[in-house]
Amino acid sequence: MISIKSGEIAEMEKQYRISLINGLVGYKALNLLGTASTDGITNLCIISSAFHLGANPPLLGIVIRPEREHNDTLGNIKTTGEYTLNNVLPEWYKQAHQTSASYPSGVSEFDQCGFKKYYTNGFKAPFVEQSTIRIGLELKEMINMEINGTTIVVGEIVQILVNDLIIADDGTVDHTKAGTMTVAGLDSYFLSQAFGRLSYAKPGTEPRELNMQKV
Amino acid sequence: MISIKSGEIAEMEKQYRISLINGLVGYKALNLLGTASTDGITNLCIISSAFHLGANPPLLGIVIRPEREHNDTLGNIKTTGEYTLNNVLPEWYKQAHQTSASYPSGVSEFDQCGFKKYYTNGFKAPFVEQSTIRIGLELKEMINMEINGTTIVVGEIVQILVNDLIIADDGTVDHTKAGTMTVAGLDSYFLSQAFGRLSYAKPGTEPRELNMQKV
Repeated sequence: MISIKSGEIAEMEKQYRISLINGLVGYKALNLLGTASTDGITNLCIISSAFHLGANPPLLGIVIRPEREHNDTLGNIKTTGEYTLNNVLPEWYKQAHQTSASYPSGVSEFDQCGFKKYYTNGFKAPFVEQSTIRIGLELKEMINMEINGTTIVVGEIVQILVNDLIIADDGTVDHTKAGTMTVAGLDSYFLSQAFGRLSYAKPGTEPRELNMQKV
Repeated sequence: MISIKSGEIAEMEKQYRISLINGLVGYKALNLLGTASTDGITNLCIISSAFHLGANPPLLGIVIRPEREHNDTLGNIKTTGEYTLNNVLPEWYKQAHQTSASYPSGVSEFDQCGFKKYYTNGFKAPFVEQSTIRIGLELKEMINMEINGTTIVVGEIVQILVNDLIIADDGTVDHTKAGTMTVAGLDSYFLSQAFGRLSYAKPGTEPRELNMQKV
């Protein structure tokens, strides 16, 4: 077993530390974050920091880094109060990765990386047409993290646009059917293989396997 | 395409909404959260809310729900300032799921669900011996979310204990080798299949595929 302590982490070569720390937590939710400025200039960037905060009200959190290229996104969320999260598919995951490049302000990653905008009535932020699961969010709270300069953005899910047959009768979202990818670390992309679905856990009983489509 | 709006989400049957909203974001990081009280009574619960907050200092966030059974965990983190995150493997994922059952306070899920505690010198929170990636964290900040009563716990990674050959020469964490599972929604467990690793994105160039072990 390899044991690494605090002091050793601090002394690591920068890129090694970034790879290691980004990778530790496991597979991460992978989404394209879409926004627009008040002038209608759109912005799209790949993120792996979205997390479930609660179902009622329906809330998601995302982490935005302090670096320059992400300030368009943060600025757009602040001024319009709206943004979208869209899942990433294997057919065009390289284009999705490419949205992380530092394009100049005013240039849209939708156009540069080959994504089609999808708009719904009255919602300012663009969805990604090529995705199969698209979530529209309304800004609720921004938490400025003094500890490292990041911002945790909390939003309420106000629109859900999904392709047919992805939501099962009990509300389960079928990410296998949706073709959703996941990411580990900064740059390693994965598809997932269904392994098992388990019944609600209660003390004194073993969890049962529920039906699950395995493809 | 199916379109669901805010008002429809609010009117959904409770369990349907929980499944749907928990599932939307995609595949999630899956970990066992280990703590101990000041009396040394240990606690273990499965979580899918861990997210990367930054690499320098090395920070992770987790979301703790307001319900009764998780208060042991939150109380332990508050009083000892220490906790662990441990990855979940397919050989014992049912036992990991079982830690979400509402065991009475004072009963350890380590014992009830068949997990072995692993301690390191001077660190109060127990690691999971059966895991292959174990992270020791020190509490930095608790954010009480008024919007829904959850708590976002931010911690600094102070110890990393991983089995051999899981960290590559460049710092990449190999979750395929580690056997790490992922979860979608509340109860659907997955293994992952390596698809591609891509070079750092720059405007005007296509991302290159990097070497990646595909098994």
